[in-house]
Amino acid sequence: MNILITGGCGFLGARLARTLLKQGALSLGGEPSRQIDRITLTDRVPPPADLAGNARVAFVQGDLLELAVNRKLPAAGTDVVFHLAAAVSGECEADFDLGMRSNFDTTRALLEATRALGSQPLFIFASSLAVFGNPPGFELPELIQDETLPTPQSSYGTQKFIGEQLVADYARKGFIRGRSVRLMTVSVRPGKPNGAASGFLSGMIREPLAGLKGACPVPRKTPVALASPATTVDGIIRVAEATEQEWGPLTAMNLPALRTSVGEMADALERVAGKAATALLDWTPDPAIQKLVKTWPGNVASARANALGLQPDRDFESVVREYIRENAGAVKLPVR
Amino acid sequence: MNILITGGCGFLGARLARTLLKQGALSLGGEPSRQIDRITLTDRVPPPADLAGNARVAFVQGDLLELAVNRKLPAAGTDVVFHLAAAVSGECEADFDLGMRSNFDTTRALLEATRALGSQPLFIFASSLAVFGNPPGFELPELIQDETLPTPQSSYGTQKFIGEQLVADYARKGFIRGRSVRLMTVSVRPGKPNGAASGFLSGMIREPLAGLKGACPVPRKTPVALASPATTVDGIIRVAEATEQEWGPLTAMNLPALRTSVGEMADALERVAGKAATALLDWTPDPAIQKLVKTWPGNVASARANALGLQPDRDFESVVREYIRENAGAVKLPVR
Repeated sequence: MNILITGGCGFLGARLARTLLKQGALSLGGEPSRQIDRITLTDRVPPPADLAGNARVAFVQGDLLELAVNRKLPAAGTDVVFHLAAAVSGECEADFDLGMRSNFDTTRALLEATRALGSQPLFIFASSLAVFGNPPGFELPELIQDETLPTPQSSYGTQKFIGEQLVADYARKGFIRGRSVRLMTVSVRPGKPNGAASGFLSGMIREPLAGLKGACPVPRKTPVALASPATTVDGIIRVAEATEQEWGPLTAMNLPALRTSVGEMADALERVAGKAATALLDWTPDPAIQKLVKTWPGNVASARANALGLQPDRDFESVVREYIRENAGAVKLPVR
Repeated sequence: MNILITGGCGFLGARLARTLLKQGALSLGGEPSRQIDRITLTDRVPPPADLAGNARVAFVQGDLLELAVNRKLPAAGTDVVFHLAAAVSGECEADFDLGMRSNFDTTRALLEATRALGSQPLFIFASSLAVFGNPPGFELPELIQDETLPTPQSSYGTQKFIGEQLVADYARKGFIRGRSVRLMTVSVRPGKPNGAASGFLSGMIREPLAGLKGACPVPRKTPVALASPATTVDGIIRVAEATEQEWGPLTAMNLPALRTSVGEMADALERVAGKAATALLDWTPDPAIQKLVKTWPGNVASARANALGLQPDRDFESVVREYIRENAGAVKLPVR
């Protein structure tokens, strides 16, 4: 089996690749499990060393829009495309045209290139919680369900929601087999901050644990819908493995969310690493980030994902401890 | 005031132009009413003679995608764009790439060209009931509301729904002022059949009244959500005149629907023009048309439109009689 992961050298793409390599085989859409022969990563930046040195991993560097338009990707024989590549929310809000190119034109071109293969690959589209937003004059329901009407309040969310529509129509037409899965905010992300408006939801844990100041630019009570990196990747793989019947309609599916708040996250950090950690939190408000984040709902239900056996992380303290286990080298404060 | 109507030489565009010319002024978005100085019609085909001969009407012939990309339209000083131009549902289902070009690329290019004016024109986007569909494995609610999640089951519906998202985000960003309004199936359309899958919902009345065979390719019980040409144009104009507060959120609004069935439509025809008319109906099923039409809901609510004072047509018999009054020359059968 041949797998393509776009954004494959990013944190999530690399983790997905490692998890797939470790499990060694995949049951695509409920078909009998097949050995994974090759994982092609595509990205602007090179892969991490462990993946670069893996004989089953190939790497195609470049601009994904150009690669797709020129039919360099996906290669013939690709069985499944995990389309994770995207410009992040903050970038897209600051530069509308960049977002349209990176998220809208690129997704369309990749769908066209996948269609052109003629072999109906499975196309897993990483959509986002950010499709939901609370626009002026519109009352979002108390609990966000899979079938709640998205009313995105960011260009990023709009572009992701349009991507869902394209994937559904390409699948309905039989050009691909397509599934859109809405990722919750992934926390705790290791490594460096990115341009996502939600980036502080990882930084407020990661930076204090490293002995650095961490920004908390929104009020404590701000509700958030999170998933750990492991839970997120498990969800994406389960979506690829579900049978057509398990998957159900072509509409997008919400991945499970741990519903918590920024204040509760800070409390969990304090339980794990004490006041030395939370003393490093900087609660200076950032209106631009607040404006985006406050439109995202915290109260997200995931009935379809639950029916696939997917559950949210148990609690945020466990998520913090998981981060520490996996990133011991990045943790400088003593942990209880 | 300067007005642009795309698809302006089609039946609906021409009717909108005539109605606007007759009322002579427009209160854009609740602003003080201003005199209409110029209506620019753009289309592939020339305008009807009455409009071509009107000193307040200008005409730009061509391919709208090219005109928009080359910034020929909208012209500087345009106050409002009524974007009605579209490839119809049957065409888009038969030729996916044509639909993407005509409905998706063109709408995006027109939005970009409108944004480029820098004057935030009002952009009224004619969306469609066809955004709603009943996909396998998905239970559509009994009654379709403004905030029901569209799950289009045609490429036409998908493209219209994507257009709604673009309009909302361009408006949210302040590039335009934007409003998307979902038209119901317009019946009775005069003139010649078009490629719309819903075309028979006009043809089954228009053709028998002209003494010709009329196709009814779906079962009598098929539910439909209709609006007469007059009601549809009144709705579009009311949407342009609503204040921001009356309009509400940037999500699309359902125009009012007369809920009836194909069988009840035939009964109304018989009450108006007798068995001589219904004897001309040909009930031979057409699976391709049935497949599209049966996914469209008949039971559509329009709370937001009602709050704007818009109401559906009273009953279908009145609609048939209105058609006869307006198109006496096309009616050959005796009418009661």
